[in-house]
Amino acid sequence: MAAGDSGEDKLIARLFGSVATHPGALGLKDDAALLAVPPGHELVLTKDALVAGVHFFPDDPPASIARKAMRVNLSDLAAKGADPLGVLLAFAIPPDMDAAALEAFAGGIGADATLYGAPLLGGDTVRTPGPFTVSITALGAVPTGQMVRRATARPGEAIVVSGTIGDSALGLALRLDPARSGFAGLDSASLDHLRDRYLHPRPRLALARPLRGRASAAMDVSDGLVGDLRKLLSASGVAGTIEASRVPFSAAARAAIAAEPALLETALTGGDDYEILAVMPDHEVSAFSTFATAAGIGVSVIGHTHEGEGLSVRDGDGAELTLARGSFSHF
Amino acid sequence: MAAGDSGEDKLIARLFGSVATHPGALGLKDDAALLAVPPGHELVLTKDALVAGVHFFPDDPPASIARKAMRVNLSDLAAKGADPLGVLLAFAIPPDMDAAALEAFAGGIGADATLYGAPLLGGDTVRTPGPFTVSITALGAVPTGQMVRRATARPGEAIVVSGTIGDSALGLALRLDPARSGFAGLDSASLDHLRDRYLHPRPRLALARPLRGRASAAMDVSDGLVGDLRKLLSASGVAGTIEASRVPFSAAARAAIAAEPALLETALTGGDDYEILAVMPDHEVSAFSTFATAAGIGVSVIGHTHEGEGLSVRDGDGAELTLARGSFSHF
Repeated sequence: MAAGDSGEDKLIARLFGSVATHPGALGLKDDAALLAVPPGHELVLTKDALVAGVHFFPDDPPASIARKAMRVNLSDLAAKGADPLGVLLAFAIPPDMDAAALEAFAGGIGADATLYGAPLLGGDTVRTPGPFTVSITALGAVPTGQMVRRATARPGEAIVVSGTIGDSALGLALRLDPARSGFAGLDSASLDHLRDRYLHPRPRLALARPLRGRASAAMDVSDGLVGDLRKLLSASGVAGTIEASRVPFSAAARAAIAAEPALLETALTGGDDYEILAVMPDHEVSAFSTFATAAGIGVSVIGHTHEGEGLSVRDGDGAELTLARGSFSHF
Repeated sequence: MAAGDSGEDKLIARLFGSVATHPGALGLKDDAALLAVPPGHELVLTKDALVAGVHFFPDDPPASIARKAMRVNLSDLAAKGADPLGVLLAFAIPPDMDAAALEAFAGGIGADATLYGAPLLGGDTVRTPGPFTVSITALGAVPTGQMVRRATARPGEAIVVSGTIGDSALGLALRLDPARSGFAGLDSASLDHLRDRYLHPRPRLALARPLRGRASAAMDVSDGLVGDLRKLLSASGVAGTIEASRVPFSAAARAAIAAEPALLETALTGGDDYEILAVMPDHEVSAFSTFATAAGIGVSVIGHTHEGEGLSVRDGDGAELTLARGSFSHF
């Protein structure tokens, strides 16, 4: 962390210094952090940046922005079968960000660092004339050779997703147009659920270890289920077929889609799910589900891979669904 | 790297995919990178962000912006005694950044990745309505327990700097006001030298190993010699005295200071030197200098530490120099 002499610099040093309790952070008072990687392990590294007005709403609560930035990175670690070691945080502060917002942001980073065992190790704070911008680098560890890759899916295996799909994209649709028909009949708990899933991804770190040695390939669903599955299949050189009726939806999502069928496509192709998408042999699904259930996470088989190329999405009658867009673009 | 479907996304995937030749980068086609840390070593981690209009001029050549972003991070590794393992890169692209600029930026990253043995392992590309913003996380390795820290300087030791001090701050002063008197008499080679030192820091990675086990403390000089030395002394709980006449200046800096003595303070307190500032026993200086000389880098003893607190800067007559500002603020 750059520690200057201004009052704001001192505030930042105090706020984040109190968050950075890991000994390798050196109290954020050195030029670098120090980290031991467990013997027999490799590092898994990911770095995602978020920009106000692009990846989150500028008026989202600062603690929620912090948690989203942490979680989208931790979600990548989970999908790769990695256990978190820590994070580095850089953020660019716009002129209108006040001390209360900085404190709330630091609090969100600290809360998730504790919740997910991903200590803040270091980083940098800069000013910007532009929007609030956050960049996190997450470091994880896997036993050497056991990172779960994206391009290694095999044919003839189950296509599996964790949790529920589409809540976040529906939460975003709700934020953008609360008056649309799909949301008119939902109760306030359902609306809150959708909004919360958009604001607060849930990185499936409890699934990291169960994925290792079990999944032939995995990724996290960040840009939409259909688009991300297409990427995984294409990278692996295999084809896949999924059934829309087997894609797991929350009660809130089901109600919204029932009221406005066009929202099915939003749910299947919208982004920010941060669920695990994995390919594994059918005989591994039961053990994987058992681990997931123990962690309170649902697992659904939505289809299978096979020789060939491309992705088929079938409706309940086995007919091909045509989706106008395969992947998510940020608003 | 986020690989979307737009033409620009494909260009970015191609440009940076061709830079990311390290096997752990997985061609930038997975969600994360994979890195083995050498046995018996710890990770040293640093993350510095740069914002157009704050840390560099928006019209600086994109390749130079890339190289500055790489080098300010690698400079931190050097000062900690760490050998580079690789970097992660996130950058936010403003609407007016064109394909040629992206290509030049990628070229700068690739050239320095090769030059310094710091391969591009992964990262993220996002859009921003704000200024071009670059965040790099650099990963290095040190034998376990041998990171050179900032807060461990001992009293009674030599204060040492590498290279020359002030060139970059003078280069910035020249950029901001080419007409000022200090620069009027300089030849074009001297002016080019100052401009180049501002644009292109020179991370002293050749000094990383010689620092280990030799320096009691070190940091890189990024926010001005005087201010950074104050930080190092204060963190270590020791005092220091340096002589301005022993601070190494380039011929160009000496000429500018001779023509406009006020530039002495700019040189001593201005930022962006990216030289090594170290404290080590007098009997270690000779061996350290020998290693540095072999790498073409000068080493100067500019003073000593002693019991107490605070920093004295003396002029040639032993009188205390009063500096209006201790540390650098970005323009």
